[in-house]
Order: sequence, then structure tokens, then C-alpha cells
Amino acid sequence: MSLLVEKTTSGREYKVKDLSQADFGRLELDLAEVEMPGLMACRAEFGPSQPFKGARITGSLHMTIQTAVLIETLTALGAEVRWCSCNIFSTQDHAAAAIARDSAAVFAWKGETLQEYWWCTERALDWGPGGGPDLIVDDGGDATLLIHEGVKAEELYEKTGELPDPASTDNAEFQIVLTIIRDGLKTDPSRYRKMKERLVGVSEETTTGVKRLYQMQANGTLLFPAINVNDSVTKSKFDNLYGCRHSLPDGLMRATDVMIAGKVAVVAGYGDVGKGCAAALKQAGARVIVTEIDPICALQALMEGLQVLTLEDVVSEADIFVTTTGNKDIIMVDHMKKMKNNAIVCNIGHFDNEIDMLGLENYPGVKRITIKPQTDRWVFPETNTGIIVLAEGRLMNLGCATGHPSFVMSCSFTNQVIAQLELWKEKNSGKYEKKVYVLPKHLDEKVAALHLGKLGAKLTKLSKDQADYISVPVEGPYKPAHYRY
Amino acid sequence: MSLLVEKTTSGREYKVKDLSQADFGRLELDLAEVEMPGLMACRAEFGPSQPFKGARITGSLHMTIQTAVLIETLTALGAEVRWCSCNIFSTQDHAAAAIARDSAAVFAWKGETLQEYWWCTERALDWGPGGGPDLIVDDGGDATLLIHEGVKAEELYEKTGELPDPASTDNAEFQIVLTIIRDGLKTDPSRYRKMKERLVGVSEETTTGVKRLYQMQANGTLLFPAINVNDSVTKSKFDNLYGCRHSLPDGLMRATDVMIAGKVAVVAGYGDVGKGCAAALKQAGARVIVTEIDPICALQALMEGLQVLTLEDVVSEADIFVTTTGNKDIIMVDHMKKMKNNAIVCNIGHFDNEIDMLGLENYPGVKRITIKPQTDRWVFPETNTGIIVLAEGRLMNLGCATGHPSFVMSCSFTNQVIAQLELWKEKNSGKYEKKVYVLPKHLDEKVAALHLGKLGAKLTKLSKDQADYISVPVEGPYKPAHYRY
Amino acid sequence: MSLLVEKTTSGREYKVKDLSQADFGRLELDLAEVEMPGLMACRAEFGPSQPFKGARITGSLHMTIQTAVLIETLTALGAEVRWCSCNIFSTQDHAAAAIARDSAAVFAWKGETLQEYWWCTERALDWGPGGGPDLIVDDGGDATLLIHEGVKAEELYEKTGELPDPASTDNAEFQIVLTIIRDGLKTDPSRYRKMKERLVGVSEETTTGVKRLYQMQANGTLLFPAINVNDSVTKSKFDNLYGCRHSLPDGLMRATDVMIAGKVAVVAGYGDVGKGCAAALKQAGARVIVTEIDPICALQALMEGLQVLTLEDVVSEADIFVTTTGNKDIIMVDHMKKMKNNAIVCNIGHFDNEIDMLGLENYPGVKRITIKPQTDRWVFPETNTGIIVLAEGRLMNLGCATGHPSFVMSCSFTNQVIAQLELWKEKNSGKYEKKVYVLPKHLDEKVAALHLGKLGAKLTKLSKDQADYISVPVEGPYKPAHYRY
Amino acid sequence: MSLLVEKTTSGREYKVKDLSQADFGRLELDLAEVEMPGLMACRAEFGPSQPFKGARITGSLHMTIQTAVLIETLTALGAEVRWCSCNIFSTQDHAAAAIARDSAAVFAWKGETLQEYWWCTERALDWGPGGGPDLIVDDGGDATLLIHEGVKAEELYEKTGELPDPASTDNAEFQIVLTIIRDGLKTDPSRYRKMKERLVGVSEETTTGVKRLYQMQANGTLLFPAINVNDSVTKSKFDNLYGCRHSLPDGLMRATDVMIAGKVAVVAGYGDVGKGCAAALKQAGARVIVTEIDPICALQALMEGLQVLTLEDVVSEADIFVTTTGNKDIIMVDHMKKMKNNAIVCNIGHFDNEIDMLGLENYPGVKRITIKPQTDRWVFPETNTGIIVLAEGRLMNLGCATGHPSFVMSCSFTNQVIAQLELWKEKNSGKYEKKVYVLPKHLDEKVAALHLGKLGAKLTKLSKDQADYISVPVEGPYKPAHYRY
Repeated sequence: MSLLVEKTTSGREYKVKDLSQADFGRLELDLAEVEMPGLMACRAEFGPSQPFKGARITGSLHMTIQTAVLIETLTALGAEVRWCSCNIFSTQDHAAAAIARDSAAVFAWKGETLQEYWWCTERALDWGPGGGPDLIVDDGGDATLLIHEGVKAEELYEKTGELPDPASTDNAEFQIVLTIIRDGLKTDPSRYRKMKERLVGVSEETTTGVKRLYQMQANGTLLFPAINVNDSVTKSKFDNLYGCRHSLPDGLMRATDVMIAGKVAVVAGYGDVGKGCAAALKQAGARVIVTEIDPICALQALMEGLQVLTLEDVVSEADIFVTTTGNKDIIMVDHMKKMKNNAIVCNIGHFDNEIDMLGLENYPGVKRITIKPQTDRWVFPETNTGIIVLAEGRLMNLGCATGHPSFVMSCSFTNQVIAQLELWKEKNSGKYEKKVYVLPKHLDEKVAALHLGKLGAKLTKLSKDQADYISVPVEGPYKPAHYRY
Repeated sequence: MSLLVEKTTSGREYKVKDLSQADFGRLELDLAEVEMPGLMACRAEFGPSQPFKGARITGSLHMTIQTAVLIETLTALGAEVRWCSCNIFSTQDHAAAAIARDSAAVFAWKGETLQEYWWCTERALDWGPGGGPDLIVDDGGDATLLIHEGVKAEELYEKTGELPDPASTDNAEFQIVLTIIRDGLKTDPSRYRKMKERLVGVSEETTTGVKRLYQMQANGTLLFPAINVNDSVTKSKFDNLYGCRHSLPDGLMRATDVMIAGKVAVVAGYGDVGKGCAAALKQAGARVIVTEIDPICALQALMEGLQVLTLEDVVSEADIFVTTTGNKDIIMVDHMKKMKNNAIVCNIGHFDNEIDMLGLENYPGVKRITIKPQTDRWVFPETNTGIIVLAEGRLMNLGCATGHPSFVMSCSFTNQVIAQLELWKEKNSGKYEKKVYVLPKHLDEKVAALHLGKLGAKLTKLSKDQADYISVPVEGPYKPAHYRY
Repeated sequence: MSLLVEKTTSGREYKVKDLSQADFGRLELDLAEVEMPGLMACRAEFGPSQPFKGARITGSLHMTIQTAVLIETLTALGAEVRWCSCNIFSTQDHAAAAIARDSAAVFAWKGETLQEYWWCTERALDWGPGGGPDLIVDDGGDATLLIHEGVKAEELYEKTGELPDPASTDNAEFQIVLTIIRDGLKTDPSRYRKMKERLVGVSEETTTGVKRLYQMQANGTLLFPAINVNDSVTKSKFDNLYGCRHSLPDGLMRATDVMIAGKVAVVAGYGDVGKGCAAALKQAGARVIVTEIDPICALQALMEGLQVLTLEDVVSEADIFVTTTGNKDIIMVDHMKKMKNNAIVCNIGHFDNEIDMLGLENYPGVKRITIKPQTDRWVFPETNTGIIVLAEGRLMNLGCATGHPSFVMSCSFTNQVIAQLELWKEKNSGKYEKKVYVLPKHLDEKVAALHLGKLGAKLTKLSKDQADYISVPVEGPYKPAHYRY
Repeated sequence: MSLLVEKTTSGREYKVKDLSQADFGRLELDLAEVEMPGLMACRAEFGPSQPFKGARITGSLHMTIQTAVLIETLTALGAEVRWCSCNIFSTQDHAAAAIARDSAAVFAWKGETLQEYWWCTERALDWGPGGGPDLIVDDGGDATLLIHEGVKAEELYEKTGELPDPASTDNAEFQIVLTIIRDGLKTDPSRYRKMKERLVGVSEETTTGVKRLYQMQANGTLLFPAINVNDSVTKSKFDNLYGCRHSLPDGLMRATDVMIAGKVAVVAGYGDVGKGCAAALKQAGARVIVTEIDPICALQALMEGLQVLTLEDVVSEADIFVTTTGNKDIIMVDHMKKMKNNAIVCNIGHFDNEIDMLGLENYPGVKRITIKPQTDRWVFPETNTGIIVLAEGRLMNLGCATGHPSFVMSCSFTNQVIAQLELWKEKNSGKYEKKVYVLPKHLDEKVAALHLGKLGAKLTKLSKDQADYISVPVEGPYKPAHYRY
């Protein structure tokens, strides 16, 4: 790959689609700031003391307008930042341009190839000779994964001289990861271990990334402390739920302009993301059918008047299919063959393995007609009917629209800032071991509180007497840890 | 104005943005056809007999993908067609390109100036020496207006030698209309009267255009028969209501990406359009406040849990303002000055006089910052805060998104096709006088019936005994004329 | 039948369940008055001038608390009133008691036999030697029917000496009507004709009664003017829709306590009543399936995300069945046999012929188990499973609960008062022929306006300029006659 | 108090309102069983092995039809049962009669005085000379409280000879508790300690009772193991949420018949109960305002389009007030004085201290007018306007209606049965210490699974490969402990 890093006049590195879109990006950044009261409050509260002075932060997180406000909050608090997207389609090029020009090193554009994607991730982690970042802001865990795989390979190589073998895996993307590491090993056989040494910790944004972290914690392979931001209530019960309720129909409309009312929609998975998607589709006038493995979530769907069936029951009847499971192999090519002409198939889960894109691409005689970028019609030879796949099976709300709106991302990202501050503050205290942590409830409540004023809300105050009666402090936190909201 | 008509290789005239987008347009047309069962059923039922053979049809109606399917339905039934948009922002350029290349003479592009707009309207009416069209498909009544004003001017000119004086009006757009007519008079002083002679009738699409027609009928100035398609149940209770429920949030999201949940939204007017808008905003999690003049509509809003107040009551508290009244002077610059920073102001009514754009533009010291086309921030000098105006106060769903989705437009346009067929069939029978007519209920029910299969619905059939009991024919129509649905 | 009319100390006739419930009735009447601003405004506006002075009004309309407020509004305006219920289960006995004691002659109790029902109707029409009432307030048209059938029989008898023959009909209820008329003929062979002579007109409340009137108008058999109150917008689009949205779940809950969430509910008919029922069930968490004969209403259901199928498709799958058609023979005993154990079957349409109660009662070996009054379980011998039928197939919201709430009935009944005032005012003017009329729109808007203040609403006022622009008077009416709301 | 225990012919003790209602109760029990698949599955699974053989179970839980199915499930599994209600208004007398006659010792009737209430509680705990129960099923914790207070008093008495002094507290109800204990001490100074000795544990049903248990655990005063059933997902996220969504409007309608549409409703507290109440009111057409202390819950309300204000902001504007906080002193008499005429005030939280009934009763000159049992109008002398208080400030859904419907209670009560089985099985194993436990997730999922079939749902099955990918067993549990649903 012959990608070249470019430099701003001030010497900061970047690689974006078109730096001339920076002005447009700045205008939208200005609008977004008004919608992100939590981040702006962080700037006001922490900006003066520059708590991130000296900290290098690498982010791997959709390079959108909202993320741009996050990045500029980190820099406003003193950090130096390098950034890449965590999805090949999720970058908003004008956002990347504005940040590249004004604030941080950015390596991201909409429509990266997988090779380019991992090149960008490498660049974001590459802080030059002095090792890697102090902190990582991760979404889905790809930056974390690269370091862990790198360290593993270096240790093996040191012991046995064995290099990673891309041919050892079927997974096309993991082949690229192994190639990168292999090639890097030749130049610097301790690069990832140096990174690991320097790293204070990671804060992880999403369900899928968190799942990976807990697996590593369970296996004892986690190399540095991690804060699970996803499971802050003000993240998972807001971003995942209300964000998707907003951005799923947005993506459907921008990609297909199809009328949702009157259609039959299948939502695979009824977690927070699935709940948001199902609510949006139902409210838009679709008849929604849920597929679930978990009887509790299934019963919740039923209580909302949704039908719970298996994909097989409805595959030939439904008009719209959305995967939200965080699992793999949900909609296979055999399902797709049975669908109605022009059925829409899309995924809003983090990874692109919910829909069997490989099976589709390899289906004998299948024809792909690109209506417009991220909207493809795939025609089966037997029936000459086709299905419409959005964003090549990747996150459709970021691929086909602009992701979640600013206000709800302000909740998520305020958690990120708080998590990063916490990791950095405690970098030498030993408070955080190589484990996964969630933020304490009083910080969660604080994030929420920062977002009430913008919406004109007024909180009731507990009297001391009332607080004692329910055994909580007057100023909170107000709920036990196990409370589900 | 030095616009030049272009010609296809086959010699058909057109003027569009970029003919090379025709392939893209065709792909989306293919998708839309699957979503427009009513129009496709018309092709199947009437295509073989070519009922429009010899008919010239001029259309003035948003040149979108859906309209393209309408146009190709008219041509499939034998008509020759010329077309323009009825709004400067509503054209989808790829749709215009596909039609221009493949099917009809099109004069339309997204972002016309007002001069260009009326030039396009003239072109669509200009069938060469043999006079004008046989039939008009109108939306908002601009094609009808131009002929009526033209005839009026020609008659005055013949009698008195007096030419229309553009300076006689304040209205910038009407000045253009008068200029066009004045300039035309010099070359052909009976052009519009010849048009009138040939014209069999018009079918009008929207509430606002229908209002104009009834006013002309009341004044005795209507020059040819008109069919009011808007008041087919399958138009006004579907397109106006469910179309806007879909396209209002679509426009808001594409223009601003703002989170609707948690916001305070004001919907001015609670007719069919207002009901659709309010439903969409409420379902997306906004708190909706309605303004109304009509106590019945106001009481309907209350029954749905919406607050009914005046604009003055809420102007400084709300985040989103939508006008749907069909009236004028709804949101004035004095209201806009009092709004919150970045309040969104938009109109989804047919004409652009609901929002006081003139007052805004002329406000001393106001600054307009174009975020992107059709999304402007206007900053007031006193407060240095701004409001965001969509589509320059024009139809925001067509200016900022792609208008209503295909399925609901199939209902509306099937009514158009049926109305055009009826006018043409009865052109010599004297059945239609210079009045405004609605389609009979059995055709309205037929339009609905054509759309049920696509959504998997199964109708119940009346027994003869049951039909007699409720005094209707077994095959319908099932309701009295005054039934409100 | 040996029913005896009783008399209050003041000499007014009555027959109610228990006069001692009058105090309880009065307390609820006091509450209801606060919820019925339209009726209270009528008292304030018209009470002083006593417009009904000298008028005798007979009412045949569910004798509920709300009706009691209507009756006392009529008496407050100077009328003398006699009343019966129009359904054997719809009387609230404490309401009847309060009215009987304090205000008018009442003949009504909850749980009348059909014989008793018609005896009550006769009593309400029986104003002694001087003939019948001047005005009728009718709901369903039974009082009107009795007079029309009576006149018909008297005329035949006079001509041919032939008496009505109850054996000439299968319909058990109509046998009773004929018996009453036959027996009456012997004592006074011109009783109903004298009534007809005196009668100024009727105002009719409900869809079903209105249908009868239009049939008589079409046949030329209507004997006196009728005002169709049902088709006032403030009646049919409020009482029918929002009233049922409230009272359907109320009836279900009181009768069965069954959880609605998660259930499959079938609503037969998607007119105003069906729309209200479907909305209520959907909101309570049921999955709702609609059956329809009318493709337009069916398409509306689909746009709201409801499935449209035939009863046969879903009869063995659904948990709750509600008929709202105004037609007959909707759910037959053969359907009921196929239903799930404890499926709930009920009717909210005016007449009790939507559900095949006769077929059920006559089913060989069927067993009826009365859980409590108006809640019966019918067990089929083949399966030993049963269905639960509410209110014996009659109006379940009045049979099992208390009907529609006061506020929405205030809209309906204010229309009634206005209609009665209009008929009485024009009694000698010849304005009203023997036809069916609706109230003019400005009165409809007035009814709505009277109900806004109670809900805290503020109307926007049109400027003269705006009113001219849309061609309406500043003070309304604001909509053309054909407007559908 | 001179209450007498009665005995059935078989010698079982009871005290109910009217044993002759047993047949009616049995009919409703039969219906309820069909709606309670979880309990019926327990009978099928565990009945044959009689796991509760020899176990004495005391229950203090609303003696409704649903509870009757629970009791008969316990007896079907071999238990001997004694029961009382946990609220003076919540008993359904026909349910109590059926159980008293057929299955267990019941001491409960609708409309107990507080003295009678605690007498009933004593009776339910009184198993005669052999000490108390083996197990307690508690709701709100009153049975548990009585034992804890009893033990405390006995220990003090033994040490110091000091008797409990009812005069030591202002709380009228606690005075009764102390009186009972004091009087009991004289006859048997170790009665409660003997109970404690025998007791294996308690399973607690509701948020409020659980809060008490955690406080005792924290203080180290908990005398026996407790299973927190409330925090099973299949309890708190179903019963609390969907149960209240059903029963709040049911209570409002039965008590007041007031139209909810168009009204302004205030819901104090937006926990699970508040969420259910707010959803019900919004769906019925009310405009809902929430009061909250917790910023996270407040932000959730905003995302659903609800306004968040303080009670003071809206007290004079709202029509309906519902408390759901689990805290005390929410609506004080000073608030009530400012309310609109006939504002409805009610509580759906467990205890009756959310509404300041004492302040209201003692307000100088206030007049109480009982419309009907559990519906009182309180008139203030200054304004002569009144408010309507439901169920004397106690649980309005049980006081004014019949509580939650069977299906959702089947979820809760299946958790109860499972908890009781677990405590009993492990009675000698030492598995449970004097702490509060929740049921393991796989049992929670099992409860949900038992309720899917009744609603026609079909679960998707994980493949082994998929299960491994998300690191869960194929057969569940599927979520981490901290998952919020």
C-alpha cells in the first residue's frame, strides 16, 4: 500500500479525503457544540487546569462531527491526540478535515478499504520513536486488539522466531492484522511491547468491545486497565437505545427512501439497540417482528405488542431486516435467497459479521448493482429478484447516514472524557489493575445532570429527611448498583 | 436570461442539471416502481389500449423519482409529456436526467432561481406552434395560474393596449410572472388564449392549489374544468398525513442531524399535514405544541396529548418550529428574534410565505451563514445568536430530503392518472364544465385497493345480505360522501 | 307484564331500580358537571331565556351519569323531559335514581328484559292524553322506530282492519315491538299518528340510528325532520373515536381483568369506533389485527402498523375479538367454536347482531357459566373449552363499564342540545322538511370551542389579512363542508 | 378488638368478608389459571414430588385472585399455608372466600381498619404452640417487620423488663404494632424468638420491602435469610412496569370515570412503576409531566417526550397526580390546597405516606365527601373547591381496581415459588446466611420462558458456534449480571 501521510503547515500529520472541507466541518462543529452540553461543561470545568497536559491520546472511533467535538474537548483539556475511525464507512469527511486542520492528527475517510483501515489504525497508534499513546479511546476494540495481537506475536517471535502467518486464518480482516504485525516485526520487534509499557489504559465505548475486554479479563490476557464506558447507564441506555431509535430510520431513508409505514420489519435482537430500532420502526408505522434467543428480552418485546418469531418463520414475508445482535451469522445467504424482491437487509450492530456478506458475494451467479454508495442491490440468478443491502453489511446508521445525533453522543462522550480523566489521574496510584471497570454511579448521574438544562428540565431536591428514609445521600447517588433503569 | 433548451439525440427538448445522472436515476426508478403498485396497475390495465394516444400532457409537479414513475405511466398509456417542477428546490436531478433521456421533455433542476423556475414552467407549457397542452397535471397551481394570468393580460391588452406592469406588485415572484407575460405578449398576443382553447382540463394535486381553484370557481373566472385530486381520500388522508409523518423527520435529520428526542417542537396548524408532522415529532420523543385557529382541530390535538398554545406563548422556549398552515405570515421575523440559539425553523406547507423570509433577509445587520445548501444559520446582531432556516422557508421535505416516499405517492399519483384519464375520455362529452370536481368514491376505493396487496392485506367480503343491511352494493362504494375516514 | 309506574312525592312518574341511590347519583352528577363544559355553557347561555319553555322532550339514550347532565341541561332550559335507556344493560342505576327523584320522568334500569325495555320506551313516549312529545332525543333510533312502525300499523289497520302479527318475524325483539303496537291499537287506533302530528323532530345520536334515518329519507317514509348529530365532527370524530379508545379497555378490564399486553386482538371494522378500539389495544401492548371490507379504511390500518386479514385467518390465534362494524353476522358461532380457550368476544357497535348470540345459545350442548353479570363463559361440548362473551353481545363499554367519559360526551350532548334548540326554534318556520340534516359547521366549531378552556388550550386568532388569504371569515367557519378532519 | 377466628367444616381457621362468595371466587380463579402459565408449570413440574411437604408458609400479600392461584400452587406442592393481605384495601373478597373454603387459612377482607390489619397479620403468623411458619412470602415486609420488632422487644424486656411503649411514636400504625407486641409479651415473652428460630427465610416481593431488608442487612439486624424477588428481572421490569401500565388507568377509570385524554397528569417518580404509569397516561392521551430527583431517570423521561418539572411548577395546572416514588412526603396538604377543583390525587407506591393524608385530615375546616368507597372528595373551606383522593392515599390500583392482571403476576409469583423452593431445599445446607439474595439469572430466564408459549412466541436457538462467539452457554444464561434489560 502506498498511502502517504500528509502534514499541515504546522507539521501535524493527517490523511483525510479533502482538507478543503474543513470550513464546512467547522460550521457543523459549531452547531454540534450547542447540542453537546456535557462535553462543553467538561471544557468549562476542566479546561483551566489542563489535566491532560502531557498526555497522548489515541482514538479509534467513528470520525464524525460528534467525535470531533470529543477530540476538541480532549485537546481543550491539554491532550495531544491522534485519531482513526473504527469503521470503514463511518467517517464524515468534513469532520475529519476540520480536525486535521485545526486540532489533531487524523487518519480517516469515508469508504476506506480494509487495508487502508488498518493502516489508519496503525498511524493513530504511531507516536514516533517514544512509543505509543498514554491512553486509548476505543470503540469496538480494534486499537486494543492490535496491541494485544502485536504483543502476543512479539513474544512468540522472541521465543521461537516464528512470524505471524496471515494464511493461518480464513478471516480476511484478521489476515490484514497479521500481515501488519508481521511486517512491523521485521523493523521493530518490540514495538507493541513498548506501547503496552507506556499505556495507562483504555476506555471502551461499545457493547462488542466490552465483550472482548471481559473475555480477555477472564482469560487473564488483558494487558492494561480498561474502563467500560458502554455500561454507564448514560451510555448504554441512551446512545444504544435512543441513538438507534433516531439513526436507524435516518439510515433507511437516506439509503432507500422507502416508506416504512405498512411494511413488515424484522429486528434480530431485542437488547438496547434492538429496542431502539423496534421502537423507531413501530412508530413509523411498520409491523415489527422480533427474533430473540433470550426469553426475558423476548417477553419484553411481547409486552410492547411485538411478535416474537424466528427468522425462518418470516423470512419470505418481511420487507425490512435489521440485525442488532452483536452475534454472528444471523442472516445467511440462504435466508436472503428466500426474501421478497427488494427486501432491505441491514446491520446496526458493531461488526459486519451479522449478515453473511461472504456467502452473498460468493453465491454463484449473484449480481451486484450499486444504486449509490452503500446501497447495493444483489440479484439472484434463479429468481432474477434482488435484495437491497445497506453499507455492505456494516453499521448502516454510520454508513448510510451520519450516525447518532449530537445530544445523545454528548452523554456517551462525556463518559469517555470522565473515564480518560480518571485513568490519567490514577496513572501512578495503582488504583486500576489489568481489569475492566465501570464508572461509579455518582459520575453517571453527573453526566445525566449535565444534559438536563439544555432540555429545560428541573430536578426535584430530596429533603434530608426523605434522603434518610430511602437511605441515600441528599446529593446522590440515588440507586443501588444493581438498579436497571 | 440566457437559458438554452437542449435536445436529446432523438430530438426531444430538455434542460436538466446533468444528463449523465440518468443511469443512477433509472436504478432508483426501478426500485420505485416496485413500491408504486397503483401506477404499475394502471400501466397493466390501461397500457394496452393506449387511452392517451394523441394527448399532450404538461406537468408542473416536483420532478422527483416518484414523479418520474408517474410520467412514465402517462407515456406508457400513450401520452406525450412535458414537465417542470413546482418548487425551486424539489427536483431530484437524477430523476430529471432519466426522464429527459428516456421519456419526456423535462425542464427542472434542484436550486433554480425564481426566473429559471418560471422559464421552466413556460417551457413545459410550450408545445410549439400548435398551442399548448391538452391536459395539465398541476401541483400548487402555477401552470394554471400562468395561463389564467396570461389570458387576463391578453384580453386587457386587446381591449386597451395596456401591458402588464411588473412594478404594480411588491411580490417578487409575481413580478416575474408579469414580466414573462408582458414579454410574451409582444411576440404572440393570443398565446395563452390559444392554450386555453385547446385545454381539456387540469387535475390539481395539493390543498393550496385546490383552494385557488375553488376561489376561481367562486369568482366565475375558472377557464377550464378541474379535478381536485387533493380531496380524494386516498390523497389527502394518506399523502398529506403519512407522507409528512415520514418526510418531516427525514428533512430535519438530513438538514441538521439534530436529535429530536427531548426537544420542544411547535407545529403550526393541525390539518392533515400538521397531524402527520406532530405524530412524527411526538413519536421521535419531542414534546409537541400545536398552534391552531380552528377549535375542532385544536380539540383533536388535545385528545392526542398535545398542548395547544399560541406561537407567542412558546416562541422563546421551543427548539423546532414547523409551519403547515397553508396560510401566510405565520412565523415573522419578530418571532425569530426571540427564539433560542439554533432554533430550527422550517415550512412544510406548499408556498414559502408561511415564514417571513423577506423580513428576515431585510433585518438590519442580520448575517446569513450557509452551513450547506438549504441549511442556513441566520445570526441576529443584537444577540449574536442565530436560528437555522431550512430550504429558505420552502417545502423542507423536498428541499432538504427527497419528499414523500414512493408508496404513498403511488396513491396520490394513481388518482392523478385516473383524473387525467377521466378528463380526456370526457373531453367532448360536456360532462365537465368549468368547475372543480372530485373523483367518485368508487375510484377512490379502487386506488386504495390497488395498494393493499403489496402490504399483504386481505379484505373481508360483504355477503349480499350484509350489504343490503347497511344499504351499500357488495362491491362498494361503502361509505356516504360525507364520511370523514 | 305487570310493571307498575311509580310516582315521586311531586307526582312525577318513574320506574328505576332503587331510588335510594339518588344521593350517590347526585354526587357523581356533581363531578360530571365539572367535566362537561359544553353542557354547562349551554345552561349559562340559554338558561335565562328558557327557550324550551313548553317543550316536551322524550329521550331514548343510555341512562348514565353523563346523560343525566344532559337531561338536567334540557330541564334547565325549560323543557319537560321523559327518558328511557336505549340498551338493556347501559343504565347506571344511581344516575337514573337521581334524575327520577330530582328532574325528569325516568324508566330505566340496568339489566332490563327486552319486554321491559320496550315497556320503558313506551312510557317515555307516553305523555298522556295530549299526545306524545314535541321533540325526541334518540340514540339508535328505537323511539323513532316505534312511532314509524306504529303509524304504519295504524294506517294499515284503518284501511284493512289488519293487526300487526308478531309471528310474522323471526326477530325476537321485533316480535315485541309488534306486540306492543298490536295491543295499543286496540285501545287507541290513532295513538302514534297523534304523536307524529305533534312531533317537531328528532335529533339522532349514533351511526346506526342515522343509517336508519337516511334509509327512511331515501324511501320517502320519514315522518318528521331529523337532525343527524352523529355526523357533527365534534361527535363522530370524538365520541366514537376517543370515547371508545377510553371505554373499550375499561370494559375489558372490569369484565375480565385480563392483561391486554402481549395478546392478539382482532378488531372487526376500522371506522371511527374501530380506530379508537385498535388504538387503545395497541397502546396497551396488544398486537392488533383488523378486518375490513373497505379498502380505504384497510389502508389506513396498514399505515398505522396494523395487520389486515380476514376473521377466518386469525380466528384460532387471537385472544380478544371486538366488533365495531355496525353490520350484522360478523362473528358467527362457527367462528366461536374455533377460538382458543377463554378467548374474549365482545361488541362495541350499537346493536347486538354483530355477534351471533342466537347461534351460540342454540348450539347443541353448549354450557353457559355466568362469572358475574355481563361476563359469561360459554363452553362447547366437543372441546370442553370455552369463550368469554361480554354483555351478551351488546355494547360492552356500557354493559361492562360505564360507557364513555363525561368530557367527550359533553361534546356529543352539546350537539344534541343545539340540535334540539334549533328544531324547536324553527318548529313553525318550515325550515326543516321531513329530511335528515346536519348542524352547520359554525355550530360544530362552537361546540369544540366550548371544550378548549377546560383543557388549558389557547387558540390562535386569524388576522383579517390571513382570513382573506384563505377565504374564510375571521371568526370561522374555517373549513369547507367536505373537510375530513 | 373482638374479632373472632372462624373455622371451616374441616377445621381450618379463617376470617373473611363472606364465605358465600367462594363460588364466584372459584370461577375467577379458573379463568386466572389460564392466564398464569408460570404457576401452572410449577404445579406440573414440582407437584408430583411434593417438595413443600411439611412446610408451613405464611404469606402477607394482597389477597387477590392472582394471589389465590399462588397460594394453591404452594399447597399443590405440599405446603400448609396461612395468609393475610398487606394492604387494608387490596383484598378481593371472593378470592379470599374461595381460598378460605378450599385451600388455606385466610385472614383478609377489603376495607380493614389498621387494627384489623395487624390482627390479621398476627393470625397469619400464628401457627399455634409449635412456633411460627417455616417460610414467609412477604410484600412490603410487614410480616418480617413484626417478627423483627417482636424479637427486639422481647430481648429488651428480658434484659430490662421494659415493655414497648406505643406512645413513644407519632406514627399511628406503628403504635398498633407496638401495642400488639406489648400485649403479646405478657402472654408469651419468647413468641417471636421462637418464630425466628423456626424460620428458614423470607422471599420479598416489592421495592419497598426490599429496601427495608437491605437496610437491616447493612445494620446487621437481619434475623434470617431473604430472597429479593423484586429484583428478578421478570419481576421488577414486568410487574412494576407493565402491571402498573395496566392497572393505573384501570384504577382511575373505576374510581372516577374521568376522561384521561386531554388532561395534564403529573407522575412523581420515574422508576419502573413511574415509567409504567407515565406510559399509560401518555397513551391514553394525557400530557404527562414527571417529577424526579434522579438525573438519569429524569433524562429518560425527557427522551420519551415527557416534561420534567417540580411539583411546585405544575401543582395548580395539573388534573391528575400519581405518586410512585417509594419515598414519603411527596404531595403535602399545602400542595393539595393549590390544586384545581376536582384534581385527582392518588398513590401507586407501596406505602401510604407519599400523600400527606394526615395533613389533609387535620386541615382546619376540610370536608370529606365519600363519593363511593375509596373515592373521596375533600373540600377546602377557603375555596370551596375540592380534590379527589383515591383509596385514602393507599395503593390505588388495588384499592380502586383489582391490581395487576394475572399474566404479569404469574411472572412475579413464579419467582416467589422458585424462591420459596430454594429456601426450603437449602434449609439445612447453610447456603443462605442472614443476608439478602437475588435469584440466579438462569432461573429468571426460566420464568420468562414459561410465559412465552401462551403469547405464541418462538425463541431463536443459538448454535454452539454462536454461543461460543459471545461466550455464553447455548442454553443460557445469556446476559452478564449487570445487564439492565
